[in-house]
Amino acid sequence: MSDPNRNLVEQIFQRARFVTSLGIKLVSFDWGWCETTLHVSEDLSQQHGFVHAGVVMTIADHSCGGAAASMVPADKDVITVENKTSFLRPASGSSLYCRAKVIRAGKSLVFAEAEVTMIRGDLRVLIAKSSSTLAVVPLR
Amino acid sequence: MSDPNRNLVEQIFQRARFVTSLGIKLVSFDWGWCETTLHVSEDLSQQHGFVHAGVVMTIADHSCGGAAASMVPADKDVITVENKTSFLRPASGSSLYCRAKVIRAGKSLVFAEAEVTMIRGDLRVLIAKSSSTLAVVPLR
Amino acid sequence: MSDPNRNLVEQIFQRARFVTSLGIKLVSFDWGWCETTLHVSEDLSQQHGFVHAGVVMTIADHSCGGAAASMVPADKDVITVENKTSFLRPASGSSLYCRAKVIRAGKSLVFAEAEVTMIRGDLRVLIAKSSSTLAVVPLR
Amino acid sequence: MSDPNRNLVEQIFQRARFVTSLGIKLVSFDWGWCETTLHVSEDLSQQHGFVHAGVVMTIADHSCGGAAASMVPADKDVITVENKTSFLRPASGSSLYCRAKVIRAGKSLVFAEAEVTMIRGDLRVLIAKSSSTLAVVPLR
Repeated sequence: MSDPNRNLVEQIFQRARFVTSLGIKLVSFDWGWCETTLHVSEDLSQQHGFVHAGVVMTIADHSCGGAAASMVPADKDVITVENKTSFLRPASGSSLYCRAKVIRAGKSLVFAEAEVTMIRGDLRVLIAKSSSTLAVVPLR
Repeated sequence: MSDPNRNLVEQIFQRARFVTSLGIKLVSFDWGWCETTLHVSEDLSQQHGFVHAGVVMTIADHSCGGAAASMVPADKDVITVENKTSFLRPASGSSLYCRAKVIRAGKSLVFAEAEVTMIRGDLRVLIAKSSSTLAVVPLR
Repeated sequence: MSDPNRNLVEQIFQRARFVTSLGIKLVSFDWGWCETTLHVSEDLSQQHGFVHAGVVMTIADHSCGGAAASMVPADKDVITVENKTSFLRPASGSSLYCRAKVIRAGKSLVFAEAEVTMIRGDLRVLIAKSSSTLAVVPLR
Repeated sequence: MSDPNRNLVEQIFQRARFVTSLGIKLVSFDWGWCETTLHVSEDLSQQHGFVHAGVVMTIADHSCGGAAASMVPADKDVITVENKTSFLRPASGSSLYCRAKVIRAGKSLVFAEAEVTMIRGDLRVLIAKSSSTLAVVPLR
């Protein structure tokens, strides 16, 4: 993995104010994937006390962006074109974990997927699965 | 529109901590639709200064939930099963506006769509289009 | 609407062997939209006798392609990047009708939506709603 | 895997006229997954000679249905609620292969995913990735 890609992935997490304000952390990444986490506070909940779908979509989509950014040419960046997220189980627990990976990196479009899990007792439970299409755009 | 439905829609916006912490407001609603708005602050931005996709998906999905809640029987509630959002233009401007409407209310599933717009100069610009499937569940 | 666009839309329906073999007809089109229809035969059914989801997705996606093709520059064509279709009601009846429209035509991506309806008695019933992202590519 | 589930999966492929008329074959299946294949003929092509997106969505969605059917209770069946398919590469080659698997089987909803591949030279190439939500319904 090149230094420009490494810098780009890190900047995507450092410079996105919404992501830092929620507390989403970049844990690990390399060519084609990244892993992120988020400690759950009450401010992230929906009306039944679970983590809000919007929080789950935010970590999933942003992590797809991180994974995609790890593979673009040095003078390029990525933006999300569309995202679909399926909510498999209620999101309860103390932290969200997300692993995103690229499934196809084309010249102008990148396709990525993300799995969002939470720890319940001794188990890691899959709570959401997400797929994003991203456009490759000139770096600003 | 019945009183239980009116109460349910209002509670969905009042009791969702993530929605109130972002500043999303319920503007208007009736049987099968609702309208919401959000004043944009810097804490909602992504790395290029636009509103983060996660914010756009949050207002779209939650508004779909409000629209769906306006049509369920008195002892029922709704939860999102899946959401797809297409990002049509960069989200720049001072406020997001969202209108969600139900396109099919079945006994166990409700399908809703949302349009997210922003004001640019004298124009209202469509920045995202979203579709959600929601499950009808017992009211807690 | 220009002649090259008119020709492109017509060719998309004439030259797609799968579309002609199913019997999908281009009914009408102009800048940003097209309408299509399909007479339902038993060979298009799924295991319960309804029209198969694959047929519904085919007419929806191809019609989105037709709508998108009506708006691209003269030396360009379109291909589908992704499609999501929601199945709102069982597809029973003698014909499918589809209206597709462009919701955003960018330089490299076009976003389109399609509604698929059937006639039941005196009513036109919405049986599916579909959204496609299409890439603008050089004309072959 | 129980006999009623085995019978249901087989019937889903035998009784769906659209699926048999295209030539889609059930290759193998067990609890939570199924594999299918389709020999490509010219009648399945789109305007550029590739396999039509509608064919790809049909095998993906129907295979998701087969995977879901392998896990439902004895008196239940499944129908597709929605499907999203991403088209990763042009679909050229002599046969489509599809592997579908369930990622979450709930009481009323099942979530499944499908990968569609083709052989190019010595490589198996991923040409599409698909996700379906299915409703669990009474067996007719």
